[in-house]
Amino acid sequence: MIVLGVDPGITHLGLGVVEAEEKGALKARLLHGEVVRTSHKEKAEARVGRIHARAKEALLAFRPEALAVEEQFFYRQNELAYKVGWALGAVLVAAFEAGVPVYAYGPMQVKQALAGHGHASKEEVALMVRSALGLKETPRPSHLADALAIALTHAFYARLGAAKPL
Amino acid sequence: MIVLGVDPGITHLGLGVVEAEEKGALKARLLHGEVVRTSHKEKAEARVGRIHARAKEALLAFRPEALAVEEQFFYRQNELAYKVGWALGAVLVAAFEAGVPVYAYGPMQVKQALAGHGHASKEEVALMVRSALGLKETPRPSHLADALAIALTHAFYARLGAAKPL
Ligand SMILES: [Mg+2]
Repeated sequence: MIVLGVDPGITHLGLGVVEAEEKGALKARLLHGEVVRTSHKEKAEARVGRIHARAKEALLAFRPEALAVEEQFFYRQNELAYKVGWALGAVLVAAFEAGVPVYAYGPMQVKQALAGHGHASKEEVALMVRSALGLKETPRPSHLADALAIALTHAFYARLGAAKPL
Repeated sequence: MIVLGVDPGITHLGLGVVEAEEKGALKARLLHGEVVRTSHKEKAEARVGRIHARAKEALLAFRPEALAVEEQFFYRQNELAYKVGWALGAVLVAAFEAGVPVYAYGPMQVKQALAGHGHASKEEVALMVRSALGLKETPRPSHLADALAIALTHAFYARLGAAKPL
C-alpha cells in the first residue's frame, strides 16, 4: 500500500511516500521524502502554487492510494492556523485533481499506531518510524519525519479497516 | 480594469468580477457573480477542489488583472480560520496558475475606499457597492456583496497606485 504523508506548513511542508506491507508487523519502504520550503519574501500565491505543484508531482509520480495528514490543533494562533490552512488547501486541490482520497489522524492516534500507546514521546515515535522503514538514522528534518509518521499511521489504520477520512 | 473579488469561506465562497473605470468617480460594471457552496457531507478534497475549479474558471473566463480578498481576522476560532484557509489556499493555487496577482485589504480599508471613512456601517458600504455598479438592488447574498466590495476596493487603491499585495 503506497501512502503519501504530508506535514502541512507554509514555510516548511513535509512530503513522505512509503510503500507499506499489506500485513504482518508494520514495515514499509521509503520511496520518497522532501520538504517544500517557501519564504515570506515570495508572493503568497507563488508559495501556495509551488506547494500545490510539488504535492501534485509526488501524487502523479508515486500514485499513492491515500494521502494522509495530521489533524492540526491550534491554540491562540489564528494567523498561523489560517496560513497552514492555505498550504493544506493547496494539497487538497492536488489530491482532488489526482483522485487520491485524504485521511487525517490526531497526535494520539499517531502515537497509538506507531508506539502502541497514546503517551509515547516524540523520540519513541521517531524511533518507530526509523525501525518500520528499516533506516539506519532517524529521517531529518523533523517535517519529513512527521510526514513519514503520518503516512505509516494511515497504513496502520487502513490495514485494520479503520482509515479516517479528513 | 477587471478585478475578481473573493469572499473566502469553506461553505460559501463569493466570487465577483467587475470592470472598473480607469479614472473619475469609482464606477464599474458587474461582469459576473456567483457563490460556490459546499457541504460538510462532501469529502474535504472535493469541497476544496471545486472551489479551485470555479475560481480558475472565473479567472480564465474574465482574465482579471488582479484578484482581491479581504484580510481575515479571527477571534478564538482556530478551527474556522484553518478551514477558511483551505478555501483561500485553493483560490491562491488558481491565481498562481492563471498568473493573476493577489491583493488584500482590511475591513477599514474597504470602508475608507467605498464610503470615504473608516467607520461606515455595513449598510453604507452595501449602498456604495450598489451605486458604483449602477444596480437597482443591493447584490445578494451577502457573500457576493462582500466579494464585489473587495473587488471595488482593489480598483480604488490600484487607481491611486496603492494596491496592496497579500
Ligand atoms: Mg512539522
